[in-house]
Amino acid sequence: MSKDVLFDKIAFLGIGLIGASMARVIAREGLCRSMVAYSRRGVTRSKALELGLVEAVYEEPAEAVAGADLVVIAAPIGAYASLAEAIGPTLSPGTIVTDVGSVKQAAIDAVQPYLASGVHFVPGHPIAGTEHSGPEAGFADLFEGRWTILTPALCSDEKAVEQISELWRCCGASVETMKPEHHDMVLSITSHLPHLIAYTIVGTATSLEEDLRQEVIKFSASGFRDFTRIAASDPVMWRDVFLSNKEATLAILQRFNEDLAAMQSAIEKGDGKTLLDFFSRTRDIRRGIIIANQAD
Amino acid sequence: MSKDVLFDKIAFLGIGLIGASMARVIAREGLCRSMVAYSRRGVTRSKALELGLVEAVYEEPAEAVAGADLVVIAAPIGAYASLAEAIGPTLSPGTIVTDVGSVKQAAIDAVQPYLASGVHFVPGHPIAGTEHSGPEAGFADLFEGRWTILTPALCSDEKAVEQISELWRCCGASVETMKPEHHDMVLSITSHLPHLIAYTIVGTATSLEEDLRQEVIKFSASGFRDFTRIAASDPVMWRDVFLSNKEATLAILQRFNEDLAAMQSAIEKGDGKTLLDFFSRTRDIRRGIIIANQAD
Repeated sequence: MSKDVLFDKIAFLGIGLIGASMARVIAREGLCRSMVAYSRRGVTRSKALELGLVEAVYEEPAEAVAGADLVVIAAPIGAYASLAEAIGPTLSPGTIVTDVGSVKQAAIDAVQPYLASGVHFVPGHPIAGTEHSGPEAGFADLFEGRWTILTPALCSDEKAVEQISELWRCCGASVETMKPEHHDMVLSITSHLPHLIAYTIVGTATSLEEDLRQEVIKFSASGFRDFTRIAASDPVMWRDVFLSNKEATLAILQRFNEDLAAMQSAIEKGDGKTLLDFFSRTRDIRRGIIIANQAD
Repeated sequence: MSKDVLFDKIAFLGIGLIGASMARVIAREGLCRSMVAYSRRGVTRSKALELGLVEAVYEEPAEAVAGADLVVIAAPIGAYASLAEAIGPTLSPGTIVTDVGSVKQAAIDAVQPYLASGVHFVPGHPIAGTEHSGPEAGFADLFEGRWTILTPALCSDEKAVEQISELWRCCGASVETMKPEHHDMVLSITSHLPHLIAYTIVGTATSLEEDLRQEVIKFSASGFRDFTRIAASDPVMWRDVFLSNKEATLAILQRFNEDLAAMQSAIEKGDGKTLLDFFSRTRDIRRGIIIANQAD
């Protein structure tokens, strides 16, 4: 079923897993007339062209966004401020800028100051991804059945928010809006802490003596294997997530540490009742997620 | 390809996910002439019969093992000692007893004292499983391409060890032998700690205020979703794992706690270099596991 063209020219600033997946589904659904991309890295630019994701690539963000009515920032959050500074003067009034970053308050703080008042910033976060990165990792179905959270400011242009919502719905996602600081708190629990834990446990294993490490790899069971998948995610992206969502991550980490200390104490004391009660409770959350259709 | 009959009568003590999966693949491959099961729970006994997993079920372990040349203990480790005590006097010389428990030294300590000298105990651990439990969760391909670790004592009967090895190879698994305490240490890293962490992080989420918990379920991202799957595993089995592999679990937990504290400190200080270095190293372990063919 063909959908309406929503934008004339879309410029991606960064075209890795998320940007490339957006480009693929946007092309498939015919949601714009042309797409271009900026990437810092030559190899990414070549790959994006080679894969036919965009029609042109640029070494300078300002060149990429010239004439675009939608700019999608799809780079690590640490790069947002310099990207916004570079494109700010070039953007015409009415242009919509959105992003796909995992932390929203920091995204707003980095981008908003560089945008003129007629330019509409609609911060967004598609809750979708894989452990693979780079433009070759993108695929059109990535957002199908997933959520995208938008965190517009109170003063955001309603029409711009509706256009970005429609874009995500056309990409197969459901859209919800919330306040940026609330988003950052919820995601610190569902995504940021789990990634930190997974990175840490796999890191603990990498620091083992060589022959033991080989055995850990050889006999990696369910559990550890799942953690290694999560801990194979893009390092730069995740460094920036933790640096830019510091308070929320540290707050939930504190609660986790307290709970883990309680588990440790129960094991030390041989307190089977506490362990059994705790392990029984956690099944309910899984059931809730299955019902909410976010897992099989 | 039909294989030789390896046993005359196999008795399962406990027939949940692992026992039922064994029964299915043993039947498919024609590895024995008859199978029976004991289960503590009436609903499990009925289900095992209804699914056609075994020909008879018993309320008493001693009745189940009468005349069996192979006994497979496939119950939570906390039940091992009383099961071994119950069957010990019934077992004829030459009978082989094996198990499928996740902790091996505790399994030996619980079972060996009750076995007469002519009865051969070959402790085993198939490194395979899902988060589902009960006889209806079993399937014949569970062990295909996975490892089974055997931890025979120095004095174990070589022929019995070879027969159990052959059984597992016929079930699709590769077999490796190692010392029980070494097994327990390796598995504390690859399986026990990851499960403890997953249970804890999902437990942390269950203790959130109700509306926040609902949002965590709704927006559960990759990461948390994987953790909830792990944390949906059988609570009794895992309680017993932690109680019976206390020292190894606490030792690796200690190292994990130190590594997590270092991550926490790096986030607090905004030390991006430490985070990036750490996150980059963990990708290598994933690569090793993919090469070792234990993940896709």
